[in-house]
Amino acid sequence: MTRPTIPAERYGERLGRARAAAASAGLDALLVGVGADLRYLAGYAALPLERLTLLVVPTADGAPLTLIAPRLEAMPARSCPAAATGALTVATWEETEDPIALVARVLDDASGRSASSLASVAVSDGMRAAFVLGLQGVLPGARFSLASAVLAPLRRRKDVDEIALLREAAHAADRVVSHIIGGRLVGRTEADIAREVRDRLVAEGHDHADFAIVASGPNSASPHHEAGDRVIGPGDPIVIDIGGPLGGYGSDITRTILIDGGKPRDADDFGRLYTVLFGAQAAATAAVRPEVTGAQVDAVARGIIAAAGYGPNFIHRTGHGIGLEAHEEPYLVAGNDGPLEIGDAFSIEPGIYLEGRFGARIEDIVVCGEDGPIILNETTRNLLVVSG
Amino acid sequence: MTRPTIPAERYGERLGRARAAAASAGLDALLVGVGADLRYLAGYAALPLERLTLLVVPTADGAPLTLIAPRLEAMPARSCPAAATGALTVATWEETEDPIALVARVLDDASGRSASSLASVAVSDGMRAAFVLGLQGVLPGARFSLASAVLAPLRRRKDVDEIALLREAAHAADRVVSHIIGGRLVGRTEADIAREVRDRLVAEGHDHADFAIVASGPNSASPHHEAGDRVIGPGDPIVIDIGGPLGGYGSDITRTILIDGGKPRDADDFGRLYTVLFGAQAAATAAVRPEVTGAQVDAVARGIIAAAGYGPNFIHRTGHGIGLEAHEEPYLVAGNDGPLEIGDAFSIEPGIYLEGRFGARIEDIVVCGEDGPIILNETTRNLLVVSG
Repeated sequence: MTRPTIPAERYGERLGRARAAAASAGLDALLVGVGADLRYLAGYAALPLERLTLLVVPTADGAPLTLIAPRLEAMPARSCPAAATGALTVATWEETEDPIALVARVLDDASGRSASSLASVAVSDGMRAAFVLGLQGVLPGARFSLASAVLAPLRRRKDVDEIALLREAAHAADRVVSHIIGGRLVGRTEADIAREVRDRLVAEGHDHADFAIVASGPNSASPHHEAGDRVIGPGDPIVIDIGGPLGGYGSDITRTILIDGGKPRDADDFGRLYTVLFGAQAAATAAVRPEVTGAQVDAVARGIIAAAGYGPNFIHRTGHGIGLEAHEEPYLVAGNDGPLEIGDAFSIEPGIYLEGRFGARIEDIVVCGEDGPIILNETTRNLLVVSG
Repeated sequence: MTRPTIPAERYGERLGRARAAAASAGLDALLVGVGADLRYLAGYAALPLERLTLLVVPTADGAPLTLIAPRLEAMPARSCPAAATGALTVATWEETEDPIALVARVLDDASGRSASSLASVAVSDGMRAAFVLGLQGVLPGARFSLASAVLAPLRRRKDVDEIALLREAAHAADRVVSHIIGGRLVGRTEADIAREVRDRLVAEGHDHADFAIVASGPNSASPHHEAGDRVIGPGDPIVIDIGGPLGGYGSDITRTILIDGGKPRDADDFGRLYTVLFGAQAAATAAVRPEVTGAQVDAVARGIIAAAGYGPNFIHRTGHGIGLEAHEEPYLVAGNDGPLEIGDAFSIEPGIYLEGRFGARIEDIVVCGEDGPIILNETTRNLLVVSG
């Protein structure tokens, strides 16, 4: 099967929409550093290091778009799709040059006035502080805001090619989870299983493994547990939460299983907890449709969990958007009263955590379709009790 | 062999030194986000995501040090060595709470006055713009500067345990390079070899693979080439530049080899280029000792390369510091007139690039010892012409 790709011409379209949105927001320029925003707008996955790479998107009519890159990365910068299709030009800086001064010159040229007179710019949310403070130094008159105000509304609604990549990533992660759950677990450490997860994520097509939470026994009550030296034994629940990018687009799936053979009461309590969680995750997923808000989807899961007496044990939001970033808009959390839109992609991942005992979480990636949820993951959500 | 580790008590010592240095610099507080600074000071390798994790180091006498973390990461935060040894306390924020407001309250309590009256704070260089702008909002009276001014002088001088980790990382990368060079290359794509490099870096003990540049034929003239679909053939030079963290500390090695069987003139030209490069890399390494400056080491390599007529083809600095970050201080570059210090660890990696034809680079990790250079990598630097 050929992997879906984003056509090169699409970057010019995205740049045009971003520039128009920035102009509408009253910005003089968008300043986009290395990361997901740059990859979205230019198709350029630059190295996230200390040398400045910056896409300058001025809003002045007819002003050219410029990708500033270190000279030693001139070749990859010039071959990114936005540059190759002529949607932007590349300007490079030499190793002993001050790249921030180059940004100021590019802004001077683009706006036809001194950069120091610009009133309002937005920087990408993930830009390093070193660059933010440097840019503030050469743009002393500018109000700095976050580019997500302009770019997140564009990035959140995935097009058909992006959804195809998210689906392929989800299925690759499904295969990894199924294989791990079906394999030997008892007697192995969490870290050993996490290593296998990482290897299999890559073997199944991921660009790299991003995270591999393997939280067993009482560790399952820590949502972001780091896989460690604990050895899996009978009666352990195991929360497996794994993912990484594939063609740039993330997978993220959680399944919780139970190793056979523990104390009956623990198993009963865990079974009750899991049944509540299963219902909450299914109901939150079923609630997805356009115009429902992120807060409402969160409230569906939270209501079911609270009604069963586990309210204080659901200590995180219900989900996060996913795309070129592992976590991005929209967030399914109280307070997010913006409506879901067709093409939004996000996790639905309620969890219940009893500190000192055990916890569980179930997570799928879901796309908001015209008529309701489109669930990308296909691995069963039933509680699997394995002999392991 | 047991892996070297950083003793838990050392984090309290580092925090004490950092606080003293911040006070001397006239700062009211250091604000340290996720990344190498946090790992250095607290031993905490937090997830680099959109939820705020922040170490607040006030300089007021007796003020407590606080690690702010999301509630769902309370368990890993509380078990980091700095927290476990009582060198700091952990404060958590709930999913629907504003973490920036919590930072302001912590600063209020620590300084005994309103955070909005603080005059000078430093943020870690890698902090996300979203947090920088948020902090600027609640600290309107504060001048913001970069924490590297205070922390880089501490982090650059590696102690014996850190050097042991850097050495283990270097030797692991040595084994990978030797294996790759000795294996089959002709007929394979760059990307295929890069995948093998990544797998072997992990198999040899790395936490994960960070980068795997495999640049063949004309691509070898692009220093940061991304491994692609080009198939290796007779007469190709191949630049292999690989690395990643091991126990948090980075490896970074480059070797350039030549596949037998190209045109005689190309091979002759490449051999001449390589001989010059070999001499430049060796001479720059030999120049390392305390009190020599980064600029001087750079000038040694650059002088030899320029004298041979390749000056314009050496388009990057001679090296970068390495430790908990792949690139950190000190940099070996014109303009860095600070002296090297005992314990500095850095790359020495001159390169010569003839665009459209070929290029080469040789890189080792070197520690500045009392009497001169301590070279951590052991793979031969001789030009290997392999039949492939």
